[in-house]
Amino acid sequence: MSATASFNPKAFRDALSTFTTGVTIITTRGPDGEPIGITANSFNSVSLNPPLVLWSLAKSAYSLTAFSANKHWNVHVLSTEQEALSGRFASRGEDKFAGIDLDRGINNIPLLHNCTARFQCRTAFMYEGGDHVIFVGEVLSFDKSALPPLAFQSGQYALAARKPREGVRLSSAEELAPECSYTEDLLGYLAGRAHYQLVAYLRTLLQNHKLDEHAFFVLSVLSIQDRLTLEQINRFVGYTGREVSQSMMVFLEKQRYIATELDSGETPRYALTAEGREVSLEHVALAKAVEEDLTEKLGLGDVQALKILLKRLIHATDPGLPDLWVAAPQAAISL
Amino acid sequence: MSATASFNPKAFRDALSTFTTGVTIITTRGPDGEPIGITANSFNSVSLNPPLVLWSLAKSAYSLTAFSANKHWNVHVLSTEQEALSGRFASRGEDKFAGIDLDRGINNIPLLHNCTARFQCRTAFMYEGGDHVIFVGEVLSFDKSALPPLAFQSGQYALAARKPREGVRLSSAEELAPECSYTEDLLGYLAGRAHYQLVAYLRTLLQNHKLDEHAFFVLSVLSIQDRLTLEQINRFVGYTGREVSQSMMVFLEKQRYIATELDSGETPRYALTAEGREVSLEHVALAKAVEEDLTEKLGLGDVQALKILLKRLIHATDPGLPDLWVAAPQAAISL
Repeated sequence: MSATASFNPKAFRDALSTFTTGVTIITTRGPDGEPIGITANSFNSVSLNPPLVLWSLAKSAYSLTAFSANKHWNVHVLSTEQEALSGRFASRGEDKFAGIDLDRGINNIPLLHNCTARFQCRTAFMYEGGDHVIFVGEVLSFDKSALPPLAFQSGQYALAARKPREGVRLSSAEELAPECSYTEDLLGYLAGRAHYQLVAYLRTLLQNHKLDEHAFFVLSVLSIQDRLTLEQINRFVGYTGREVSQSMMVFLEKQRYIATELDSGETPRYALTAEGREVSLEHVALAKAVEEDLTEKLGLGDVQALKILLKRLIHATDPGLPDLWVAAPQAAISL
Repeated sequence: MSATASFNPKAFRDALSTFTTGVTIITTRGPDGEPIGITANSFNSVSLNPPLVLWSLAKSAYSLTAFSANKHWNVHVLSTEQEALSGRFASRGEDKFAGIDLDRGINNIPLLHNCTARFQCRTAFMYEGGDHVIFVGEVLSFDKSALPPLAFQSGQYALAARKPREGVRLSSAEELAPECSYTEDLLGYLAGRAHYQLVAYLRTLLQNHKLDEHAFFVLSVLSIQDRLTLEQINRFVGYTGREVSQSMMVFLEKQRYIATELDSGETPRYALTAEGREVSLEHVALAKAVEEDLTEKLGLGDVQALKILLKRLIHATDPGLPDLWVAAPQAAISL
């Protein structure tokens, strides 16, 4: 191991990028008053008293002149919904501020909206940092919203899944079951239990309407794509492992949730009745209320993170389901 | 808004802490050669050429003397499994290194094991930073493992749920359904579909054994707690919304997966047969293989994040299930 290493730059960047960061946009005004803004993840806090923060700017950056001349700049900790804004300010485009609502901060420095936190600063020190300049700023003013923050790790945007201080274990068993057996750490168990416990909140409402989860799926599918054959319905709900039977359709029709269309002796197509649509909406409304309650308990950022991970899991295990939210071409033609 | 603000320190810290960071331990050796180490999340990269990184240390820190005197120090980007180590080095304990395996880095500076990345540095600059000193170090050597990194946000440890660059949407519909209807963003839908798609991989194996998911749950419960009554079994699997019937138990006994114990006319208790245990293990092994495959696809850190979030969801929606991995007292006595 030599004291003066000559690094593979990519390997060095890869190692550095394992350190998770938030994402900020830092704004100022150029000599002619034009707004300047760049995306930076090199931000960090330095001192509480006096209140200081820092970030680094490449010496090659176009905006270096502006940030060197104007002592005032604002740091915006971006929220999870501001990924596109991050991309926009990370590029060299000239119209970064086009169409963006701005507040005027101290010294007329642009303040962006809908961030997680904002710090209005004045340069306290500019330090030599190799191919970068380190800006240390005194924080003159700050504010914070309830929006969950965006994160960045290993070159990808990310959302933080927070771990409570007391840890997250389902069982209080001191020794968990041996590695080879069924444990609380089995993803299949966790996904199943999460699913069933979420459905549990719907169950009473389902029973009031003489429905089970499976029948609810049928109504939900028909609430998005109307006039489907039984075969088409089964293509959408087949992933549950239970086939929708003709007799379930007869039952749902008897309950007046669906109606059958018979086009000149063709295969019957099913559509929701007004009542079926109402029942379906009632269930979706309850599912949303359950989700809102959960969001209160877990935090919005964590629920967003969970949805991203579930979608990635669904992509990774997708047996080739048709897209429920895009009507199949042949259905569009035949209707 | 005044130019010289006097801040509420807690509000300022809260706003700063919304910026997500990784967690590092930074080590050096004191004047007598004793190992020194502290937890810091003020780390960040500065420059690629020359390779520079920085972090800040409170002027009040006990270790300031050591870090000021010894120009060599090592930064360890902690992995998700090193939360306890982070806590240990964040405290003022004297025996931080007790029982910890160390490598010797450049200049004999301690190198910890099982980190995500490590940077061996030599102080290039020490800068004034209010109540902190900013250390800028030249990176002399570094390495990186495949272990996912630990993160920290708003005062809590966290794991990053990464968002692929192309985004994560299930549907290719340009306009998603209106807010009031059933959408791919409904958590209940995502949890259900994730669950069913995970089960789909088990289905063939289940069918070979003439089992369905529900029967598999019964065998799984009995593989952890033996000699349960039907009522006890139902307490464990009742959250699925389907009751285990007497006739399912008769069927499972006929298949020789379970055996009945009748203690002097009492309620029958059920236990797995050797064959039942084997079938149960076979399914768990497949579930683990599916999970390993998913871990390849999503990344270990993301699967860990998903499990944490599912456990938190399960806690938040728990209808009061008994702890499957801890035998109930009355069961322990009666057997």
